[in-house]
Amino acid sequence: MNPDNIKKLLNQVSKNKLSPEQALQKLKQLPYEDLEFARLDHHRQLRSGIPEVVFCPGKSLPQLKSILKKLCSTGQDVLATRMSEDVFKKLKSSLPGKVRYHQQAHMLVFQKKPPTCRGKVAVVTAGTSDIPVALEATVTLETLGSGVEQIFDVGVAGLHRLLDKLETLRSSRVIIAVAGMEGALVSVIGGLVDQPVIGVPTSVGYGASFEGVTPLLAMLNSCSPGIGVVNIDNGFGAACLAHKINLLGES
Amino acid sequence: MNPDNIKKLLNQVSKNKLSPEQALQKLKQLPYEDLEFARLDHHRQLRSGIPEVVFCPGKSLPQLKSILKKLCSTGQDVLATRMSEDVFKKLKSSLPGKVRYHQQAHMLVFQKKPPTCRGKVAVVTAGTSDIPVALEATVTLETLGSGVEQIFDVGVAGLHRLLDKLETLRSSRVIIAVAGMEGALVSVIGGLVDQPVIGVPTSVGYGASFEGVTPLLAMLNSCSPGIGVVNIDNGFGAACLAHKINLLGES
Amino acid sequence: MNPDNIKKLLNQVSKNKLSPEQALQKLKQLPYEDLEFARLDHHRQLRSGIPEVVFCPGKSLPQLKSILKKLCSTGQDVLATRMSEDVFKKLKSSLPGKVRYHQQAHMLVFQKKPPTCRGKVAVVTAGTSDIPVALEATVTLETLGSGVEQIFDVGVAGLHRLLDKLETLRSSRVIIAVAGMEGALVSVIGGLVDQPVIGVPTSVGYGASFEGVTPLLAMLNSCSPGIGVVNIDNGFGAACLAHKINLLGES
Amino acid sequence: MNPDNIKKLLNQVSKNKLSPEQALQKLKQLPYEDLEFARLDHHRQLRSGIPEVVFCPGKSLPQLKSILKKLCSTGQDVLATRMSEDVFKKLKSSLPGKVRYHQQAHMLVFQKKPPTCRGKVAVVTAGTSDIPVALEATVTLETLGSGVEQIFDVGVAGLHRLLDKLETLRSSRVIIAVAGMEGALVSVIGGLVDQPVIGVPTSVGYGASFEGVTPLLAMLNSCSPGIGVVNIDNGFGAACLAHKINLLGES
Amino acid sequence: MNPDNIKKLLNQVSKNKLSPEQALQKLKQLPYEDLEFARLDHHRQLRSGIPEVVFCPGKSLPQLKSILKKLCSTGQDVLATRMSEDVFKKLKSSLPGKVRYHQQAHMLVFQKKPPTCRGKVAVVTAGTSDIPVALEATVTLETLGSGVEQIFDVGVAGLHRLLDKLETLRSSRVIIAVAGMEGALVSVIGGLVDQPVIGVPTSVGYGASFEGVTPLLAMLNSCSPGIGVVNIDNGFGAACLAHKINLLGES
Amino acid sequence: MNPDNIKKLLNQVSKNKLSPEQALQKLKQLPYEDLEFARLDHHRQLRSGIPEVVFCPGKSLPQLKSILKKLCSTGQDVLATRMSEDVFKKLKSSLPGKVRYHQQAHMLVFQKKPPTCRGKVAVVTAGTSDIPVALEATVTLETLGSGVEQIFDVGVAGLHRLLDKLETLRSSRVIIAVAGMEGALVSVIGGLVDQPVIGVPTSVGYGASFEGVTPLLAMLNSCSPGIGVVNIDNGFGAACLAHKINLLGES
Amino acid sequence: MNPDNIKKLLNQVSKNKLSPEQALQKLKQLPYEDLEFARLDHHRQLRSGIPEVVFCPGKSLPQLKSILKKLCSTGQDVLATRMSEDVFKKLKSSLPGKVRYHQQAHMLVFQKKPPTCRGKVAVVTAGTSDIPVALEATVTLETLGSGVEQIFDVGVAGLHRLLDKLETLRSSRVIIAVAGMEGALVSVIGGLVDQPVIGVPTSVGYGASFEGVTPLLAMLNSCSPGIGVVNIDNGFGAACLAHKINLLGES
Amino acid sequence: MNPDNIKKLLNQVSKNKLSPEQALQKLKQLPYEDLEFARLDHHRQLRSGIPEVVFCPGKSLPQLKSILKKLCSTGQDVLATRMSEDVFKKLKSSLPGKVRYHQQAHMLVFQKKPPTCRGKVAVVTAGTSDIPVALEATVTLETLGSGVEQIFDVGVAGLHRLLDKLETLRSSRVIIAVAGMEGALVSVIGGLVDQPVIGVPTSVGYGASFEGVTPLLAMLNSCSPGIGVVNIDNGFGAACLAHKINLLGES
Repeated sequence: MNPDNIKKLLNQVSKNKLSPEQALQKLKQLPYEDLEFARLDHHRQLRSGIPEVVFCPGKSLPQLKSILKKLCSTGQDVLATRMSEDVFKKLKSSLPGKVRYHQQAHMLVFQKKPPTCRGKVAVVTAGTSDIPVALEATVTLETLGSGVEQIFDVGVAGLHRLLDKLETLRSSRVIIAVAGMEGALVSVIGGLVDQPVIGVPTSVGYGASFEGVTPLLAMLNSCSPGIGVVNIDNGFGAACLAHKINLLGES
Repeated sequence: MNPDNIKKLLNQVSKNKLSPEQALQKLKQLPYEDLEFARLDHHRQLRSGIPEVVFCPGKSLPQLKSILKKLCSTGQDVLATRMSEDVFKKLKSSLPGKVRYHQQAHMLVFQKKPPTCRGKVAVVTAGTSDIPVALEATVTLETLGSGVEQIFDVGVAGLHRLLDKLETLRSSRVIIAVAGMEGALVSVIGGLVDQPVIGVPTSVGYGASFEGVTPLLAMLNSCSPGIGVVNIDNGFGAACLAHKINLLGES
Repeated sequence: MNPDNIKKLLNQVSKNKLSPEQALQKLKQLPYEDLEFARLDHHRQLRSGIPEVVFCPGKSLPQLKSILKKLCSTGQDVLATRMSEDVFKKLKSSLPGKVRYHQQAHMLVFQKKPPTCRGKVAVVTAGTSDIPVALEATVTLETLGSGVEQIFDVGVAGLHRLLDKLETLRSSRVIIAVAGMEGALVSVIGGLVDQPVIGVPTSVGYGASFEGVTPLLAMLNSCSPGIGVVNIDNGFGAACLAHKINLLGES
Repeated sequence: MNPDNIKKLLNQVSKNKLSPEQALQKLKQLPYEDLEFARLDHHRQLRSGIPEVVFCPGKSLPQLKSILKKLCSTGQDVLATRMSEDVFKKLKSSLPGKVRYHQQAHMLVFQKKPPTCRGKVAVVTAGTSDIPVALEATVTLETLGSGVEQIFDVGVAGLHRLLDKLETLRSSRVIIAVAGMEGALVSVIGGLVDQPVIGVPTSVGYGASFEGVTPLLAMLNSCSPGIGVVNIDNGFGAACLAHKINLLGES
Repeated sequence: MNPDNIKKLLNQVSKNKLSPEQALQKLKQLPYEDLEFARLDHHRQLRSGIPEVVFCPGKSLPQLKSILKKLCSTGQDVLATRMSEDVFKKLKSSLPGKVRYHQQAHMLVFQKKPPTCRGKVAVVTAGTSDIPVALEATVTLETLGSGVEQIFDVGVAGLHRLLDKLETLRSSRVIIAVAGMEGALVSVIGGLVDQPVIGVPTSVGYGASFEGVTPLLAMLNSCSPGIGVVNIDNGFGAACLAHKINLLGES
Repeated sequence: MNPDNIKKLLNQVSKNKLSPEQALQKLKQLPYEDLEFARLDHHRQLRSGIPEVVFCPGKSLPQLKSILKKLCSTGQDVLATRMSEDVFKKLKSSLPGKVRYHQQAHMLVFQKKPPTCRGKVAVVTAGTSDIPVALEATVTLETLGSGVEQIFDVGVAGLHRLLDKLETLRSSRVIIAVAGMEGALVSVIGGLVDQPVIGVPTSVGYGASFEGVTPLLAMLNSCSPGIGVVNIDNGFGAACLAHKINLLGES
Repeated sequence: MNPDNIKKLLNQVSKNKLSPEQALQKLKQLPYEDLEFARLDHHRQLRSGIPEVVFCPGKSLPQLKSILKKLCSTGQDVLATRMSEDVFKKLKSSLPGKVRYHQQAHMLVFQKKPPTCRGKVAVVTAGTSDIPVALEATVTLETLGSGVEQIFDVGVAGLHRLLDKLETLRSSRVIIAVAGMEGALVSVIGGLVDQPVIGVPTSVGYGASFEGVTPLLAMLNSCSPGIGVVNIDNGFGAACLAHKINLLGES
Repeated sequence: MNPDNIKKLLNQVSKNKLSPEQALQKLKQLPYEDLEFARLDHHRQLRSGIPEVVFCPGKSLPQLKSILKKLCSTGQDVLATRMSEDVFKKLKSSLPGKVRYHQQAHMLVFQKKPPTCRGKVAVVTAGTSDIPVALEATVTLETLGSGVEQIFDVGVAGLHRLLDKLETLRSSRVIIAVAGMEGALVSVIGGLVDQPVIGVPTSVGYGASFEGVTPLLAMLNSCSPGIGVVNIDNGFGAACLAHKINLLGES
């Protein structure tokens, strides 16, 4: 796919250092490993900046064990999301000792070397109940190498709590705003700062919050321009986007 | 229905001033007039504080003409909502000269004597596009006799515009907050003031605002407690509720 | 935020009783306390008439324990909503003895002194299954200091039950009408009384009631003008609004 | 399909009055006529009590002309629903003089002889705007041969208007209740009478009435047992059901 | 409310056999009993042909016990719907021995004397999984006094199964058609018979059946005219309507 | 229903080899067996190419046992879908030894002789969590007699994994593409191959995937023409359609 | 992408008939043409059996003119869908004389040579109003080269009309069933035939048909296994799938 | 709000250069201008990097004229979105000559000096019909000062068109992907590149695309991590977010 690599390969063929058959084989040998039920993508971190991530729901214990063992054995960073504590306890003995489980974030992290520190991402929540989603974002960001500023429970019902944190918000490169119920926090932050803002609706609420649909719609319709929205409770996705944006400021 | 009246009636029967048949007839003579296709409720203003209101969509021109002429002839106050200018022009010549048409509010008002002035209701909008709904509320409030404070275009994308009007908000008895898009204005106001707040979602917006469903849901899920919500674009209903609340402060 | 306070402060600065740095610090010291995961808003009761309320779902036991202990220790009134009996039993020993738990309403109340009695709020239900939501409203109202008239199981399938209670309804300042299924009770009450009516749709029903969406929509579309609607099963929110309205009649 | 007819046929075959081939042919000759784009079902009235009905939307003028001419020429009763006045004017000259067009009901009727009079069906509306749907029911009922009692504009916002008509309601065999907005009329009627009640939600309303979805859901969730519901604005379908029920009382 | 009764009462007042105060009292003494949390409607059977029915979900065990004991003690018929076997076992000892519990229908019935037999109602299901809803209808019908013909598992995927039962269908007075998935059974039956057809959508299915929304919508849009629809899984409501229709054929 | 059979029958009647009564009886004797609660359709395999399939949810254990025993005893192939392992364990002892249970596919299969091998159907999944649905398709296909190529975990987030399998895809007769989340796999495959593609949305995902609604809608709106879609998680239905298509290529 | 082509290319490079740079260039020269606002895919017919199809809504007249002229000039077959007659009249003069416009199907077809005749696809509609969608399928099928059997207006309200056409249905290779309202036709056909059935829901209907959502859901939940569904009113997509299936029977 | 400014102000008060009253006044004088119906926010560009933007729908012609004249007179950049050509023609004469109207993007731009050139934002569309939304993004980006790479009509039905543009995509700082129908383009791009990707669903499509809901949901559920989504057809919002991200790479 990469023109330079293909060109090198073609040069080798041209110089008969490689037969056409060998070249064809090479072109096809894509760097993933086939576990029959799961194709592990060992080059993803190189390609997209995000390591292979395992979404746990719907996978059986044997599948998870097999996938995680394989990934850990390759030496790359590994993230598993939405893993219940119960599942972790059953997998623990099969995984390397260096694996860390984050209970509130429901995440498992395997990371060889601590990443170098970068610009800050502010992770803000409207309420205390939104914290698990914010922690999924935090753990992901720290694994990817972004610094994190946590500002929790600053919903718009008590606006002064948010206004008090404006300086911290304005000194971050990106802001992840996590809110359930009516999700107004995102619009208010969007009107107060320059930075890119990523809205994460949460399923916190009841009745006509429809498991997070209401804050999702509210964030998509924000009157403050320049807000990107991710799926309900998707702290992980918000962190991936925030990290990619954060990286742009590094150069 | 009213025990005192029934008692009076029964007393008259007991004293043979009224025959049982006459009494039965009286009990049945409820004060509305039958136009065959519409039953005009002449005592409603007495009963519920709100005059007979004519919702125009779905009614034919001859029906509207007949209903409005009849109502105006009784001397009570009359309100017609969602009347297009086109319809008004066709009805105009059949109605009393005192009838007023409010173009932006799409309302027709017929009112014998100006009501006495009362406490203030603040009518606030997030944007300029929400003004027609706010005017429906304003016209209704003024017809019912409530004073109105208009604060337009103070949406949360520029929070300072709202904060600057806090004193006006806090000196009103009730606040009607009109907002489309994500409707965050209502939550922010609800967190800043003591007064009862009535949220009116509007169909201003596009795409995932779903003709006002998004601000409706957002207002219903507000993290600020004590907010009552009315139907999308229902400035009239919000005004009725606000006026009833306003009246409580008069005594 | 409060101009009088700022003016006082500025006067002190002007008279050099306060240095600019101290004044800046004071302006920033907003009266909430930071528990890291929750910012407790000690002045909310002063500001909005409603004490700090803890919405329990989504908060861990340690978080709830920490938040509630802190709040109780400040001497203000405390309300916690949607607390299961199981959670209460686990928290009980950590909280002051004066704490009361209302099993059917799923609420915890901590209140130093009984509030002075005020005008009445009628809390009406369509059926027996709507009672838990009505009790959430009742407990909230009584904690805030409003008197309550309970009228339960008067749904429109047997209209005479409601008509029999008209006098009680008409002698209340505000009416909270709680109904599931098709929520017609709210419209019928709205057509019979003068008072502000607050509709609380409940999730009572099955099939196409969609967990309370049907009565919610029905109440929003009521043909009786002047009805404010709150979220599904939100007895607490209805009570906050009713209490604010009730207070207007006190002056 | 009908065993008696098949038996007769088989008897004829057994007695060699009919060859097997002829019998097969007879079994296949079902009494409909093929216009290529529409199969006219001439025996439907016999089979289901309802004549062939033409639903006009989506059919081209030439198709309508051809279908209606054919049907009228067979001497059976013909109903066409949702025909705009504009379409009728273009078809008029091609149809028999006896054809009647009902402008408010948007229906065309062709009927050879007036049906014998039967028990009454009450057709009730909540508002004046619901009348076109009620007229679709009325015209259909009268064409099928049921007597009709019309009671219009008796919505629950003014309950006395409905209570005044109770005797008329109770002397009907079936009640068709037509209502938009929140559709509460149906539940209230259902709680007051013995008769089968058919609810027709209408698209009268705005905002969260969602073009009639709200009254539809409300009627389906009625707390009054024994209510059958038809599609939004489906006066025709309600009339068919009411007529079938009415016929049961004739025998 | 009943004019004859009022007239009698007024006659007694006129003849001074009753004082006005006594008459007023009588007019108010409506025949229901107040259990504080539930108003039992002892005259409902007289008024609407359907006995008082207890919808169990959302009621506590003590509430159910108190309501059912009271109702059974009055000698009227009693129906309780959606009662789990577990709840029944806990209530059993407090109720009269004559109480019957129908496990598959989740219903409790208390009935003093067997009703006289009447015309038949056909209860038809598309599949075996729809049977519990059909049994709710059957038990209700038999308690009310209607005869029942059960025709189960005749869905349209094997049309011959239904066509084979046409004679039974055509000899019933009313047909209740119970179907989940796409609910096509109702339309097919509606096209084959004269009788009133009541459609009961069920929550049988998965994915895009949305817990019964799909057959509900399908039945509401049936191309066969004259079908009344009830709520999802509402066998009880369908039976009430069918019984009322069945009664019309008795006279 | 089949003209040839009827003709033969009529010939026999004509030749008096069969009395009309016997013929009528024969015409009515449709080949299904009545278990009272379930009508088993023994000729379905002959008629539609798919054996009788038992959808387990909503059926009681005794019903399942009775249905499956009867079906197995007739010697035809039997499939049961969505049977939990728990249910299977309880049924096992009552069923023939040859019955196989597929744990991940939640299916029970009873098959007398292995079918002859035919063209291949490719069953592709976007992720590992989609595998249970893919296995329902696989087991169904193999029971019906189609060969299967399994290609799992080739979602579009790593496009090279899919492109690598293009030859396998292109050598299949039909492709079943199973995907949750946004279901983009189906469109991408549809743009790369000639074959008929059947999309199976799965409930894999969270938040705004709405239990599979999102991939369902995405597949229905695919920009690649020629894609047929089945219900969410309906591996069985996709396999039936794929097998019917596969059979066309056999002739 | 195609291994054989790459291998040939690599062989040429190996034999130095092609420089690596030229080979790279060739690998990149994909056969589409860039009109800046539209990339015309000249090899699509070769690749997927379906010619380039132009979806007209949302494209400006100049864009349509430019795209269609270019496509026609290449000599391949061209289809344009959802083109209003008005647009066609404005484009007509710019296009080759051989272009045909199908008014009822809203399609434009440009086809050099008539395709060879193949197996038949039955296109069935429930009503007359569904015919435009059926014609979109018919025109597409005939352009692609499939024979078509049209069977219109055989909805399940008059089942005999469909049963009469069973032989025609059973002699087709594939069946496209087009239905609005409740879409039951698809399930009934699916239960009667062996062939693959493709369901096309249409927006014919009103109220709770929700512009075709109801038949769409009904078809997805069909109790007859083996039905593939396409988007609402998507006659074109159904035809593409049917043609691909039809082709499998040719070999 | 800004501590430095407050400190300066307080210093002035401390030095008695400013009286407390004057200071209070200054603290309140926020830099917006009040047109009664619209509050123009002259400092927004300074505060959030985005100039004041006028959303035209719902605003009357006189309102638009007044707002735009005022804004243009201040010398800042002005953007107006969703302005129909008709409206522009009526406003044209009242606005400065330098105003530009972009017909396909429905935007009006007033810009004093061309911004300095920065990194590139790639704006990609799936189809030709998505171009108007892409142009709204393009015009916004260019007004804000970001460079734009346009890549149109590269939807996944012809994957080679997209793969051919990979180098252009990979050399951009941010990618805006605009797609209707099933929106799969966004996921495919997200899996191929490192850059932040912003998904813009469009209302291009029909039937079950539900005016853009389908691509909106698909993008929110993308299996490619790191995608931010904006409202349907919101090219403007996507551009604001992309520009903010682009700016981070400038430093």
